[in-house]
Amino acid sequence: MNDVYVHGYDSRERARLHDQAGTLVDLLHADTSYPEGSVVLEAGCGIGAQTVTLARNSPYARILSVDISAESVADAKARVNAAGLTNVQFQQADIFALPFAPESFDHLFICFVLEHLARPDAALHVLKSLLRPGGTITVIEGDHGSTYFHPDSEEASKAVRCLVELQRAAGGNALIGRQLYPLLVEASFDAAHVAPRMVYVDSSKPELVESFTKKTFTAMIEGVRESAIEAGIVQAEVFDAGIRALYRTAEADGVFCYTFFKAVGEKARRA
Amino acid sequence: MNDVYVHGYDSRERARLHDQAGTLVDLLHADTSYPEGSVVLEAGCGIGAQTVTLARNSPYARILSVDISAESVADAKARVNAAGLTNVQFQQADIFALPFAPESFDHLFICFVLEHLARPDAALHVLKSLLRPGGTITVIEGDHGSTYFHPDSEEASKAVRCLVELQRAAGGNALIGRQLYPLLVEASFDAAHVAPRMVYVDSSKPELVESFTKKTFTAMIEGVRESAIEAGIVQAEVFDAGIRALYRTAEADGVFCYTFFKAVGEKARRA
Repeated sequence: MNDVYVHGYDSRERARLHDQAGTLVDLLHADTSYPEGSVVLEAGCGIGAQTVTLARNSPYARILSVDISAESVADAKARVNAAGLTNVQFQQADIFALPFAPESFDHLFICFVLEHLARPDAALHVLKSLLRPGGTITVIEGDHGSTYFHPDSEEASKAVRCLVELQRAAGGNALIGRQLYPLLVEASFDAAHVAPRMVYVDSSKPELVESFTKKTFTAMIEGVRESAIEAGIVQAEVFDAGIRALYRTAEADGVFCYTFFKAVGEKARRA
Repeated sequence: MNDVYVHGYDSRERARLHDQAGTLVDLLHADTSYPEGSVVLEAGCGIGAQTVTLARNSPYARILSVDISAESVADAKARVNAAGLTNVQFQQADIFALPFAPESFDHLFICFVLEHLARPDAALHVLKSLLRPGGTITVIEGDHGSTYFHPDSEEASKAVRCLVELQRAAGGNALIGRQLYPLLVEASFDAAHVAPRMVYVDSSKPELVESFTKKTFTAMIEGVRESAIEAGIVQAEVFDAGIRALYRTAEADGVFCYTFFKAVGEKARRA
């Protein structure tokens, strides 16, 4: 990983991640709830944007949330405490060197993490070793290639592609959502099931226009302006026209589409 | 309209349209059912691929299905008769010159038609005049720009774009799905509501791989090979590589995504 682009690590980006989780909660998380007493590993909790929802939806599960960044872990902890949740513990740890015994978790939860890893397949193998037989893994990722809008705009598509290319240069994959099914299957999870979670936004949903089209997606693309121009991926005028075109999709006759993917798999029980 | 590309008018294409309706029935139509005694206009029934489902889901409604092509109307009639349905009447007519009294229908249904019209907005205005106040319009369209897949392939994207460009050259719009909301609003329909209907296909759904990825979508793209090459839009080798790449997405580790859009609006009741 180089440091051209790593998201989640500046304050504007933090606010954006928080906004995103706030508006997408139901769409992404409503169907994830773990039973009383189950032990759940959240791998890559970041600043805890998803942890609050995870903990709230499974009040009687014990959640252990880890992240490679000690600073993010501190933020996540503060956020979870502020929400009055007491069923989460935190630990700084690298997904590829987790200090846990094999098969020590009932369930795994991993959201917006694989997209940043050069070897998501290897991460899934490591995580699987920590899961008890019969346990489940839940993976949620976006896919920036799922973005389209009205009015259509070549410049907007180019601006979106900047993020895809920067993330690729950083060793990640912004198109990973569509790949969750083969990734789970290759990691030998059973009963892999993927459900797309499409965000469709038109002006009959003004809150979603504001929170998703503008404050989540377009803000995320805007956030790579300098990196993209410095990396020579795009000309400033094209990028800026693209951002204007993305905001244009938030007007009364505009439409914006983006799709997240949620995958669930099981670790086979012993025969 | 020129005749570079007009779909629905050769026998292979007819079989494809029929296959398509067979596999997408629930996704697209399950939530459309008209009450007993209501009079429904299906504008642009083509070869009746949707008419059978429409009539079956609303057994006590009276459906009038029209199409500009007398040959298609004959096909549609035969298909509906073969299905044993008796609640449909047929008539050859042009959407822009329909021989019906104003406000003579309770509901309007229009599926995979607006994409072929140079003036979908004008068509909606004409249709609205035939609808009684308080009646509804239901519009279903695809959007070829919603297509993405794994493994990703530039050639496959170029092959898909051939169809988009040919349809544009023929006066249509293969990206119309995302525009249904503004189209209904501009035509002054009330309470416009659009719901995307995403088709997500991975190898856990072998029937959908076969019926949608291969026999519906890829077959449709294959169908424009000669037109696209003749029109100079694409080189034969690129197109053929694109088709191979689309079939590649139907293999065990492949994924294919496409989104239809379904819109419903109401004609305002008199104050």
